Amino acid sequence: MPRFFEQAPTDIVTLMGETASHISRSLRMRVGEHITLCDNGVDTDCVIESVGEEVVVRVLSRKPNESEPTVKTTLYQCVPKGDKLETVIQKAVELGVDRVVPVLSKRCVSRPDEKSAKKKSVRYNKIALESCKQSGRGKVVEVGEMITLDKAFENSKNDDCAMLFYECGGEKLSDKIVPQSGSCSLFIGPEGGFDEMEVEKAKANGIHICTLGPRILRTETAPLAALCCVMIYSNNI
Amino acid sequence: MPRFFEQAPTDIVTLMGETASHISRSLRMRVGEHITLCDNGVDTDCVIESVGEEVVVRVLSRKPNESEPTVKTTLYQCVPKGDKLETVIQKAVELGVDRVVPVLSKRCVSRPDEKSAKKKSVRYNKIALESCKQSGRGKVVEVGEMITLDKAFENSKNDDCAMLFYECGGEKLSDKIVPQSGSCSLFIGPEGGFDEMEVEKAKANGIHICTLGPRILRTETAPLAALCCVMIYSNNI
Repeated sequence: MPRFFEQAPTDIVTLMGETASHISRSLRMRVGEHITLCDNGVDTDCVIESVGEEVVVRVLSRKPNESEPTVKTTLYQCVPKGDKLETVIQKAVELGVDRVVPVLSKRCVSRPDEKSAKKKSVRYNKIALESCKQSGRGKVVEVGEMITLDKAFENSKNDDCAMLFYECGGEKLSDKIVPQSGSCSLFIGPEGGFDEMEVEKAKANGIHICTLGPRILRTETAPLAALCCVMIYSNNI
Repeated sequence: MPRFFEQAPTDIVTLMGETASHISRSLRMRVGEHITLCDNGVDTDCVIESVGEEVVVRVLSRKPNESEPTVKTTLYQCVPKGDKLETVIQKAVELGVDRVVPVLSKRCVSRPDEKSAKKKSVRYNKIALESCKQSGRGKVVEVGEMITLDKAFENSKNDDCAMLFYECGGEKLSDKIVPQSGSCSLFIGPEGGFDEMEVEKAKANGIHICTLGPRILRTETAPLAALCCVMIYSNNI
């Protein structure tokens, strides 16, 4: 059933703007068809009462959304080449990420300037929103502004656990490292991986240096594998 | 270090054809640089002795490849739209798949004819080979010919365990279902998912009907999540 992140405070809700035009023009939905409005962790099942410039729906039932993981995971993804970050965002949302933050590390080849980064940020958040709708998420996943790796290390100090994935090896993930609830941070390097100095700095910040197994994963595959591991070990798959 | 799936039976090996031209022209490698020849589960470290139409290398050391999982996983992937199967193959190889078989199920929108399927098969196997080299695999992963879902159910009877992933729910994966060694089969539906009748048929064939959690995964994300689960529960990540 099509999902929209809209508030449904009353039993009759009038939808406007982009949501209304998505329902009437893109999806060509008609009176009597159902949609889900999702707001603040509650899924509201609605039936369409009228379709036009505005779309009016009547609330049938409300229930708590059950697809949000118990652990809030921030993915600090070092910026890869081309449009790979878009794929990572789309799939990380499906796999239960809480927040994605693009990071500039030493070996990033792609280094967008401020103007281009701002433009991209709008696009990234749109991709995240669409993926939230399609995968049935109970909240809108936000893609943060691009920051430096040092700043990302600093930010991750607020989390219960932080893990950096290093192709030269590290700890195996397990339910001893991954928290069952609370928050964690994942650090994924760019195409060339992390620099040794960066790994040392991560250690000094109390970040676990981890491995995803003996096979070498591409920069756009590693975050998905890491997220799967976190979801499994925190009992969210 | 660049990897090539070539035999190294003697201490001096002469490489020809595509491998030689890849080393000399694409990678522009020079005398004294190292490559790995991989054959039948053994990684052979070699130094380049001469570069030209042929490339001559000298064997320095041999060691067993350590990146092959203990469980052999066949991914039966129902053919998705566009070029998504290419992405699935590339990333499934990184994540340790043993074999990929494209499958035609009821809701497949893309239905290539025999001629086009043959042409695509060559391309798929090329993508698998490249991904094997890049991810450090110890064997060449094969992409099989496209078969029907019935035939795939039949073939999976030879495996120790088979799992079909169904968006309407099923068993949670665990180390009780996933074998630690031996072989297993994974069935992933196309964009529209599996038909109820197909799921019933799978059950009748002794296949576990499984879930990948409460979030809805795209057809190209599901196989990667399923493979991660198998690798974790079989202790291969």
